[in-house]
Amino acid sequence: MLPRIALTLGDVAGIGPEVVVRAWRDPALLSRCRPVCIGHPAVVRRAAELVGFDIPVRPIGNLDDAALDDPGMIPCWNPAGEDAALVPGGSNDRRAGQAAYDYLIAATQATLAGQLDAIVTAPISKAALHLAGLNYPGHTEILAEACGVSDFAMMLYLAGISGGEAGLHNLGVVHATLHTSIRSVPGLLNSDLVFTKTRLIDRFLKRVGCRAPRIAVCALNPHAGEEGLFGTEEITTIGPAVARARREGIAATGPLPADTAFKRAIAGEFDGVVAMYHDQGHIAIKLVGQNRAVNVTVGLPIVRTSPSHGTAFDIAWQGVACADGMIEAIHLAALLVSHKATKQEAV
Amino acid sequence: MLPRIALTLGDVAGIGPEVVVRAWRDPALLSRCRPVCIGHPAVVRRAAELVGFDIPVRPIGNLDDAALDDPGMIPCWNPAGEDAALVPGGSNDRRAGQAAYDYLIAATQATLAGQLDAIVTAPISKAALHLAGLNYPGHTEILAEACGVSDFAMMLYLAGISGGEAGLHNLGVVHATLHTSIRSVPGLLNSDLVFTKTRLIDRFLKRVGCRAPRIAVCALNPHAGEEGLFGTEEITTIGPAVARARREGIAATGPLPADTAFKRAIAGEFDGVVAMYHDQGHIAIKLVGQNRAVNVTVGLPIVRTSPSHGTAFDIAWQGVACADGMIEAIHLAALLVSHKATKQEAV
Repeated sequence: MLPRIALTLGDVAGIGPEVVVRAWRDPALLSRCRPVCIGHPAVVRRAAELVGFDIPVRPIGNLDDAALDDPGMIPCWNPAGEDAALVPGGSNDRRAGQAAYDYLIAATQATLAGQLDAIVTAPISKAALHLAGLNYPGHTEILAEACGVSDFAMMLYLAGISGGEAGLHNLGVVHATLHTSIRSVPGLLNSDLVFTKTRLIDRFLKRVGCRAPRIAVCALNPHAGEEGLFGTEEITTIGPAVARARREGIAATGPLPADTAFKRAIAGEFDGVVAMYHDQGHIAIKLVGQNRAVNVTVGLPIVRTSPSHGTAFDIAWQGVACADGMIEAIHLAALLVSHKATKQEAV
Repeated sequence: MLPRIALTLGDVAGIGPEVVVRAWRDPALLSRCRPVCIGHPAVVRRAAELVGFDIPVRPIGNLDDAALDDPGMIPCWNPAGEDAALVPGGSNDRRAGQAAYDYLIAATQATLAGQLDAIVTAPISKAALHLAGLNYPGHTEILAEACGVSDFAMMLYLAGISGGEAGLHNLGVVHATLHTSIRSVPGLLNSDLVFTKTRLIDRFLKRVGCRAPRIAVCALNPHAGEEGLFGTEEITTIGPAVARARREGIAATGPLPADTAFKRAIAGEFDGVVAMYHDQGHIAIKLVGQNRAVNVTVGLPIVRTSPSHGTAFDIAWQGVACADGMIEAIHLAALLVSHKATKQEAV
């Protein structure tokens, strides 16, 4: 059976509804999964009109398989109230923040209960969440709380990079630190943390079919610290983490100067990169992946992916949003579900 | 008259001699400049043999124009001793460090004296310099000392990027901090520094023919600090520098999240980027430019460029080095000399 995948609308004032509907038009979508919109049907209908997609939107009251089985319509489950339908596009709105949260929680609970197999989330606005009194930094923390886990990480995944001589390849990037100031990064890094992230990406890459992942671990400092001249974290923290990973059978290399590490990884020499801070990973992946990079939350009991872009209020509801990231996120979610299923059947 | 350009061999144990000789084969080279090797002729001869380039290497005793005028040979001026010819390839050697320094100083003095118009430098090894008792971090500091200047900067320049819809474009990147640890970066940044670098890249871009440079100034922190949530340098330091630049007529934008800034710049939206630290600029430029990125020392009384790669001891004297960076560096030096000449004539 094809995986049943929830597409949460995210913040309805952003580009989420548009990219969800555009993704529905991807010819490969229905051959890989049974998608269901989680959000207000009137919003989905408006998004379909915006992009000129003539397909019925059918409100559904529950997530049983029959409701998801008709390829000629968009099934839409609204676990929240009516407010979201009233939100204007393009700015932060308390009602949109509350609805985005409600969609996410309902989709998570349905997936934990086995009614759905994965969640792909359209972007939310942190500011809108705050207006609704929901003080979360983002999706990941809400999901972790709803799933009751504390050891998780955000990964960027880019499929089908054409940089290598050997044809297309895939690349995962995990960050040792993420939404924190550069000033705080050196104090947050420690050898355990770098090792844990290295093991985490190794396991993830194996799960998506990479048999012997080759992993580059970035240095923190320029030129990998030039033997202690420009910082010592490579010697005290990152080097020992790489050594430990290698002792445990992980094909980790590093600490490598970050400019070299990403250049080599994009060229096909590595399957995964451990970045020490947000921009180190994001500069490279956004450049190469344009809008195609996908976020994956690793460490949850459920499969969850999302496009790596934000709500893009500046272009919301104008009919110009690009759905490449959403399409890639859905495909990766379907792949992760199928690998998970294969593994469970094998056990 | 074509610009007379010194090509210093750099560290003779590295790939410098090979890329210099390979660049000589670039069909456009002799139509744009009159190059002269600064280094030991025996080393140049060995490099020509290595790459199978059958051209005589003629030792010259002085830099008068007649000596540089014959396209059928490589003129080679050796301002140092004989030691460099004895250095084995692929590792740090005191004699190579001393010779690299001597070549650079002699070329600088000849250029300051007007015997030459520009210097393009092959890479040196800081460790070899240190073995020779020369405690400089790199080329730039030696050049600044030899020229008697204190206000200078290293710029990365990438010509002919194909990322934009409007065809090829060029991009300059200047760094507010460079060879220093990430830990030290926040303390080194100040508004004056960021403003000075912004003005410096604006002037440079105008000098290479960009009439109204559009300049992106990067944030230090992820998401540009998300309004103070992930660091305050955007508010206290970078924002005021951008505002001052705009008051002085510079088309500066920022602080922009670095991942966005580079993506937009590569796509053609900006002509220059001010990066806050080494890897922020280098990750993007190395990815997009491969080996073609050129270093330019800005603020010297002479024109000086170099390829952005290092000595590459691991592949030295194996006949596999790529000369793209050296070729681009020579072309940019010739362009800078011609713009300088035009400007002086116009005054």
